[in-house]
Amino acid sequence: MIIVIKPQTPTIEVHRIINELSHYPVNIEKIQGKYKVVIGLVGETNSINLENIQQISPCIEQMIRVKQPFKRASLEYRHGEPSEIAVPTPNGIVTFGQNHPLVVVAGPCSVENEEMIVETAQVVKASGAQFLRGGAYKPRTSPYAFQGHGESALYLLAKAREATGLGIITEVMDTSDLEVVAQFADVVQIGARNMQNFSLLKKAGATLKPILLKRGMSATIEEWLMAAEYILAAGNPNVILCERGIRNFDRQYTRNTLDLSVVPVLRTLTHLPIMIDPSHGTGYSQYVPTMAKASVAAGTDSLMIEVHPNPSSALSDGPQSLTPADFVELMQEIHSLAQYFGRGKAFSTATTVQLRAACINV
Amino acid sequence: MIIVIKPQTPTIEVHRIINELSHYPVNIEKIQGKYKVVIGLVGETNSINLENIQQISPCIEQMIRVKQPFKRASLEYRHGEPSEIAVPTPNGIVTFGQNHPLVVVAGPCSVENEEMIVETAQVVKASGAQFLRGGAYKPRTSPYAFQGHGESALYLLAKAREATGLGIITEVMDTSDLEVVAQFADVVQIGARNMQNFSLLKKAGATLKPILLKRGMSATIEEWLMAAEYILAAGNPNVILCERGIRNFDRQYTRNTLDLSVVPVLRTLTHLPIMIDPSHGTGYSQYVPTMAKASVAAGTDSLMIEVHPNPSSALSDGPQSLTPADFVELMQEIHSLAQYFGRGKAFSTATTVQLRAACINV
Amino acid sequence: MIIVIKPQTPTIEVHRIINELSHYPVNIEKIQGKYKVVIGLVGETNSINLENIQQISPCIEQMIRVKQPFKRASLEYRHGEPSEIAVPTPNGIVTFGQNHPLVVVAGPCSVENEEMIVETAQVVKASGAQFLRGGAYKPRTSPYAFQGHGESALYLLAKAREATGLGIITEVMDTSDLEVVAQFADVVQIGARNMQNFSLLKKAGATLKPILLKRGMSATIEEWLMAAEYILAAGNPNVILCERGIRNFDRQYTRNTLDLSVVPVLRTLTHLPIMIDPSHGTGYSQYVPTMAKASVAAGTDSLMIEVHPNPSSALSDGPQSLTPADFVELMQEIHSLAQYFGRGKAFSTATTVQLRAACINV
Amino acid sequence: MIIVIKPQTPTIEVHRIINELSHYPVNIEKIQGKYKVVIGLVGETNSINLENIQQISPCIEQMIRVKQPFKRASLEYRHGEPSEIAVPTPNGIVTFGQNHPLVVVAGPCSVENEEMIVETAQVVKASGAQFLRGGAYKPRTSPYAFQGHGESALYLLAKAREATGLGIITEVMDTSDLEVVAQFADVVQIGARNMQNFSLLKKAGATLKPILLKRGMSATIEEWLMAAEYILAAGNPNVILCERGIRNFDRQYTRNTLDLSVVPVLRTLTHLPIMIDPSHGTGYSQYVPTMAKASVAAGTDSLMIEVHPNPSSALSDGPQSLTPADFVELMQEIHSLAQYFGRGKAFSTATTVQLRAACINV
Repeated sequence: MIIVIKPQTPTIEVHRIINELSHYPVNIEKIQGKYKVVIGLVGETNSINLENIQQISPCIEQMIRVKQPFKRASLEYRHGEPSEIAVPTPNGIVTFGQNHPLVVVAGPCSVENEEMIVETAQVVKASGAQFLRGGAYKPRTSPYAFQGHGESALYLLAKAREATGLGIITEVMDTSDLEVVAQFADVVQIGARNMQNFSLLKKAGATLKPILLKRGMSATIEEWLMAAEYILAAGNPNVILCERGIRNFDRQYTRNTLDLSVVPVLRTLTHLPIMIDPSHGTGYSQYVPTMAKASVAAGTDSLMIEVHPNPSSALSDGPQSLTPADFVELMQEIHSLAQYFGRGKAFSTATTVQLRAACINV
Repeated sequence: MIIVIKPQTPTIEVHRIINELSHYPVNIEKIQGKYKVVIGLVGETNSINLENIQQISPCIEQMIRVKQPFKRASLEYRHGEPSEIAVPTPNGIVTFGQNHPLVVVAGPCSVENEEMIVETAQVVKASGAQFLRGGAYKPRTSPYAFQGHGESALYLLAKAREATGLGIITEVMDTSDLEVVAQFADVVQIGARNMQNFSLLKKAGATLKPILLKRGMSATIEEWLMAAEYILAAGNPNVILCERGIRNFDRQYTRNTLDLSVVPVLRTLTHLPIMIDPSHGTGYSQYVPTMAKASVAAGTDSLMIEVHPNPSSALSDGPQSLTPADFVELMQEIHSLAQYFGRGKAFSTATTVQLRAACINV
Repeated sequence: MIIVIKPQTPTIEVHRIINELSHYPVNIEKIQGKYKVVIGLVGETNSINLENIQQISPCIEQMIRVKQPFKRASLEYRHGEPSEIAVPTPNGIVTFGQNHPLVVVAGPCSVENEEMIVETAQVVKASGAQFLRGGAYKPRTSPYAFQGHGESALYLLAKAREATGLGIITEVMDTSDLEVVAQFADVVQIGARNMQNFSLLKKAGATLKPILLKRGMSATIEEWLMAAEYILAAGNPNVILCERGIRNFDRQYTRNTLDLSVVPVLRTLTHLPIMIDPSHGTGYSQYVPTMAKASVAAGTDSLMIEVHPNPSSALSDGPQSLTPADFVELMQEIHSLAQYFGRGKAFSTATTVQLRAACINV
Repeated sequence: MIIVIKPQTPTIEVHRIINELSHYPVNIEKIQGKYKVVIGLVGETNSINLENIQQISPCIEQMIRVKQPFKRASLEYRHGEPSEIAVPTPNGIVTFGQNHPLVVVAGPCSVENEEMIVETAQVVKASGAQFLRGGAYKPRTSPYAFQGHGESALYLLAKAREATGLGIITEVMDTSDLEVVAQFADVVQIGARNMQNFSLLKKAGATLKPILLKRGMSATIEEWLMAAEYILAAGNPNVILCERGIRNFDRQYTRNTLDLSVVPVLRTLTHLPIMIDPSHGTGYSQYVPTMAKASVAAGTDSLMIEVHPNPSSALSDGPQSLTPADFVELMQEIHSLAQYFGRGKAFSTATTVQLRAACINV
């Protein structure tokens, strides 16, 4: 349940209320919204008598029981106010959230070598995106496929970060790698196959590093939010939800089915920011630009797009990677469309000439 | 296979070529594109020797074997040129096609009574949409649910058509009703549950009435195009493909999963125009505006949206129907977005004041 | 709701009760069970006061409201007693039902010619099966594939029936063919693609011919029972439910996913008899014997198995058809397993020598 | 690819062949079958010239390239011979394999306390089953649900093992727990949600402990075999595949869809033994006995069944757990059916009286 505090209540009174609540056998959390403070209570709240709570202070405006099984992830838990996840990057703080400009994450599936990742990062930077993605540890269906360069790839990502100022998003696959990944990444990704790797979720919840939580291949929306709840319950409020396509009966023309309706659905259920990954969502680069634009129109807070200097020779996911030229062209369309929807300010101001140049260099 | 004829070839030579081809045991069709004529051959074309064909005339530019199992529906069959389906309505000819403005179809799930359908039609008209939808024959899961008013509802649709000049789209469920439905409808709808009712498809192919073919609940894209092929093969080239959501494992928050990626996928496979139905696709009116906008950004040729004067008392599909006020508001956003994407000309020029008035009257 | 009448109540009193009930605005049906009479009431029963009903007669034992949306198909509607569907065939009456021996239906996908269907029928007969299946009207994904020989194939089925005494099961695809199909078939099949062809269901409900209702490719169990309810509500109580595999995400090794758990689930929901079709359910003949045996162990009331004199040259569904030799071998295993489960009496007594002979002749 | 060695080839010659092969850049494995030795080569085998190989020795009978992406898991890799996984337990060695008696694993979802696990183990033992299952680490959708007693539960399993002589099967969820779980378990389970936790698979492959690999909720059969391949490729040949139901569109009456056709399909693809879990597969105890029998008829090598002394108060999975009485009754049916199919010898010889007693004690 949540306790909404009246505006202008002095901080000292909020703390007194929290103190009074502390003898209940529940977890208590103070949520500082833009206009109001909300106190969240998670645990055996059924036995709590609402009248007793009301008597604690006249500064209590309202008490609401959260009916959803995901408590901290629920929209009610923040009394309807969207989360803002501010990520410091060398180029400045980038904020994921419904009232913020569209954030774009781009890069190759895997970090292959220094030249490749740095040059891709330069294209990504020049296009106006804010984050570079690139896999060091790769979940591959076959044990005989390229498994990623592991820790050494993290060093290459650091070089690309240094060269461009972009934030870094990379995936962690194992609890024992979390610490090192968190050192190098600005946002740590938990992939679709690990969405219900509860050990990993708990450990990710024990840091404060922003976590990008991809939806499992056949995860329901409720299961996805419950996976986020694992992270939130462990103390980390910085979770971004990423839709990357779900499994369906027809896999002839697309690798997955991009479920764009999660955007309006999640808006009614959770305060967490949303990312859409049309590259995995469709599996083929030719469909990515259209679905990226549709994602912006659906109101996503961010996009993740795979780009590779030479998709046909990529060590993984080549068919779904855009070329630098196609990516730069798409980013111009995305930029304009984000502006149309009032979410266009986050982009850097590289001119078209600079963009073309960046692209040609690769 | 197709035979592409060189531009400027005299019609008499085209006919001579067709005549020469007529001794092959295949079906021959002349397809008049915007710039070129293409001759389509369907049947046992494997045995045809391409060199022999080439010798028929120097005006033959190219011969291409269509590898897809859907021949007439394939993009190759029209040599890459999108179909245009021009539908005469009292307000003028409305054309469905990739190079034409966005077409909007709106109305209630079922035709309930004269007052309700005429007033809804007036809102639909005033909002700038071109077609009124409304069910006379309703496919309902339960035999005890309202089954539609049948033929008498067709007369009410005719009145709404007369009152507003809108074209009429309504569903046929049985071969024996096709004739009467085709008399009243400008476009005849074949619903998702009948997508593989092959008897109905064949009979629909024997008219020239435009057919709106909804995708079956769990139909693959190939099965959907093969269903269209039934209609095309029977001689009716006027098929519009309508995505209305597919069945998936998660049905807690949406009734179906709207598969928007069909838009870019179908563009690579077929020349047929595309419609998206976000009302059935999501099942809840609160998600319809967002998904309608995403559909426009994805490049759909048309939209189908359910609107009802009083959704909570609707005889069917109330939860997914917009109120007139919400519909009018959405249409203004759609109008603007379609213009942004260069597909905005089809809308009528009712002013905002007129729109509001239309909406208030209901 | 249902009204359970006490055992030994005189028929005249039952009719008096029915008469008393007739002024309620509901449909009334008398269901003669083995031990008891049950009176079914379908319609607006919420407004019926149970005390008033009880006062009609002391012979009323119990009144139960059916909560399921499928009323007549529900197990409660027959007060827990399974239906028995007795089908007269030239060889005698064959009864489908939970307390009856296993019934086997076998034959080719399509009726191809007289010799083929009569010889297959002889194998089917000699193996101990009771029904011959064979398609006259074929639902095919492609308009260019063999569509069945239509009405003329019905005459060939009649010849096979005459030659062997087997009952005939064949599919109807269109309301306009129902009459002629019902003349030739002992059981009329409605296929998976037409499970929600409500016009066809209603018309099938207007005959008394037993109907084999295949589950739609992605139909939920509730939707399937609601489709059966359409037939029952129209007055035909003779419906057999046939599971034939559902659509799933993995179609690499099987065509469909045979959902055998429908057997125990349906037993808790409905009184209707169950058939399993492992041929369509798996799509490959090599998997059919195993799944046929699993179906018997799961307690199915009947099996449908495709057999063809020469699968590799079949006009349709060759890959899933057993050869006569494999079918005869399977039937011996099935026979023995059905006996193990106490459901083995329905088989004819052809000796192994006769079986081998029948098989060799083909 | 594999190299089949002629029967009666001296071991020294086999080793000479392996030695000759060792300069190819591939992994080489000697597989000792019942009648023949097969040498497996995994890696870049495309460049290997078959004629050169043949010349190594006249004792080479045949060379076969494995076309499946799963090399070591493929049936070809063992030249068609099923694997046998012999697991030492206090009661003796229990072998999982196609030519061995049916093995039954039973027990509660979670280990709740000592009394409960020991008493359940006694029922399981008395019923004739060979393994006790019980979760120490529990993957739960909600972070607020019971997460298992962890390591302390392993000690309780050890007590139950000591008391009954049953082998122990329990799940590992995290690489860091593998070592301790492997100390206590006779077979280590990797659950459905971790089927593509590749770090865990690799680590499981680095032990020789038998691994029970559950199929992921929406894993294709190929993905499942590729997950097994991770374990095999890391050096552990002892993998048992467990089907536990897949996700589907209809979840109203069953929790998952038990895909029994995996049994005949896997028989054509792999040599690994198969287990079926009808408890998770259906999700409701009332459907478990029927599906357990169907699984035996389908030819499974083993069964996993949840049993709990008091299902309604279970800390997890109560609805799908059998009572001891129902379990004992089912085991008698299973015993008889396994005998019918020639797979009955593995059961202990507790008399019916002993079974009843065991059951009553709980």
